[in-house]
Amino acid sequence: MLQRAEPQDFERVLSSMCTVPHPVARQAAERFLATNPGDPGTYETVADLEDAAVDALGELTGLADPAGYVASGGTEANIQALRIARNRADTDDPNVVAPVHAHFSFTKAADVLDLELRTAPATDYRANTDAVAELIDEDTVCVVGVAGSTEYGFVDPIPAIADLAHDADALCHVDAAWGGFYLPFTDHDWHFGHAAVDTMTIDPHKVGQAAVPAGGLLARDESLLDELAVETPYLESTSQLTLTGTRSGAGVASAVAAMDELWPAGYREQYDRSMANAEWLADQLRARGHDVVGPELPLVAADLSVPMTDELRERGWRVSKTGAGEMRVVCMPHVTRSMLRSFVADLDWY
Amino acid sequence: MLQRAEPQDFERVLSSMCTVPHPVARQAAERFLATNPGDPGTYETVADLEDAAVDALGELTGLADPAGYVASGGTEANIQALRIARNRADTDDPNVVAPVHAHFSFTKAADVLDLELRTAPATDYRANTDAVAELIDEDTVCVVGVAGSTEYGFVDPIPAIADLAHDADALCHVDAAWGGFYLPFTDHDWHFGHAAVDTMTIDPHKVGQAAVPAGGLLARDESLLDELAVETPYLESTSQLTLTGTRSGAGVASAVAAMDELWPAGYREQYDRSMANAEWLADQLRARGHDVVGPELPLVAADLSVPMTDELRERGWRVSKTGAGEMRVVCMPHVTRSMLRSFVADLDWY
Repeated sequence: MLQRAEPQDFERVLSSMCTVPHPVARQAAERFLATNPGDPGTYETVADLEDAAVDALGELTGLADPAGYVASGGTEANIQALRIARNRADTDDPNVVAPVHAHFSFTKAADVLDLELRTAPATDYRANTDAVAELIDEDTVCVVGVAGSTEYGFVDPIPAIADLAHDADALCHVDAAWGGFYLPFTDHDWHFGHAAVDTMTIDPHKVGQAAVPAGGLLARDESLLDELAVETPYLESTSQLTLTGTRSGAGVASAVAAMDELWPAGYREQYDRSMANAEWLADQLRARGHDVVGPELPLVAADLSVPMTDELRERGWRVSKTGAGEMRVVCMPHVTRSMLRSFVADLDWY
Repeated sequence: MLQRAEPQDFERVLSSMCTVPHPVARQAAERFLATNPGDPGTYETVADLEDAAVDALGELTGLADPAGYVASGGTEANIQALRIARNRADTDDPNVVAPVHAHFSFTKAADVLDLELRTAPATDYRANTDAVAELIDEDTVCVVGVAGSTEYGFVDPIPAIADLAHDADALCHVDAAWGGFYLPFTDHDWHFGHAAVDTMTIDPHKVGQAAVPAGGLLARDESLLDELAVETPYLESTSQLTLTGTRSGAGVASAVAAMDELWPAGYREQYDRSMANAEWLADQLRARGHDVVGPELPLVAADLSVPMTDELRERGWRVSKTGAGEMRVVCMPHVTRSMLRSFVADLDWY
């Protein structure tokens, strides 16, 4: 079966927040395929590479002395951020406040960690800080801001959210899983240098062009990560912070390789190109009479009907839908202007 | 930094439960590096491969119609098994009963999931079923049996443990993360066909010779996995069962490739060779006056002192220690008789 199986190519993929790994990232992944940073006593080199990856992520996110690790993905990072907040706090009935457009991994985290998720409505696709404030109480352990929302690519008012969290003695977690590799090149206030952010999710294996699995969890302080520590009796390291055990050295090495190669100039070029593509697509859709949301970052949502999206699928396109039913196009590094022209031509055909 | 970095080779690695991926597994991992089974609507081929991987795991574990998925590793599978049990039960104060030699991921799971872990003492390195029974009460949601313990490689009396679980209306989870690819070739009663087992951890990326990350969670019934479902508004699939979100298609493809190639004859040969190596090593150590535990499966623990293990490390050997301080050697597929001869020679030198 495997010989006949062909992996998905990216030529018509507009739905994914993952992309083609950069060639240097692929090379590094292949070299380090048989290593496990979950056992740093055995696999020392990849453990050092992970430190380098965290330092690089600190450069993007305004953190001079970052604590963190390369996670399996943004979902793990979000779960772990909430776990830090829950473990640090002193309530039997912890809740987390997040905007309605927070990624579904927060719903998953709330189930896994047995805490209550309270979602605040948005205004114009961004967190409404009054609504967030109303949901915060003395059992709130964490307030979440999204920097590059999954469905619309919008950025919440992070400094205001961080202040609300701190006024309530809760942690502020920013989910920049996707947005974090674009935002260094915009005017938004979103990271540890701009606001009282405690933890952040930022994924090299999305816009960073590393290979999967390479998510990222950052914390302002090592003491926050200590809330995650579990003793490890048979490993040479004495405790383990991560959610998973055995981990992929390929992902870690690919993250270092990609960031070495592309930060900052390559990522800046990427942002400029992808943003121009998203703006071009938005203009094309508006010119055809569609309502378009964005782009604030390289993601476009538009009111195209569901049957048209099914027909596009039959022509090989992979597009997704927002919860509200809009067509959602993510302009990742592999998405070219030429692809988008073909896409618009197919939209016109229908 | 990356250019100078060399991944750990396996020539003197006796500490790891991971190994060199089989060449066909490496090939498949590289082909499917840029795919994400967490988004099966976009990456359809790798979603089909995952079904094939689960079916193959069902063959090893006596399950004709397996439910399950390829997890990030055994830790995720263990966390998820306990999450199924906790979510299915109807208590505000859930506990899990496991033998003392259960992997530390159960401690991690208990913290993550906010449940109580009760550990029962062992007798002769296997679960003492009377001690297990004493810890079970009406709030027990799961009873764990280990099929190939991490530190000693021993196998618990699984049918008895499963009966204790079911008498208490709790689920029975078997951790065969490492043992599961040896046990089809032994006389133990350990799997779904032998006992009232509900869920199982079995990892292709350990003895199965797949690439990391490729763990495995199996359940007797799809309804058990439904306890894990979280709605996914923007993906074409409607819900997601896994703990992580974005996932490695490389791991999934490598698991299929390895099991296609090696089940059953290649794995049988591997077991015979590794078991013979472990028995040879145990004999050598006993002949030198050391107390040796095992081998029941290809793992040997012996009372060598800590300083000697540090000296071995300086000679490039990677060995680990049990919690009780014994030297622990795992005879994985990459461990040859020749390596073990060199190892014993170095032991003699000291």
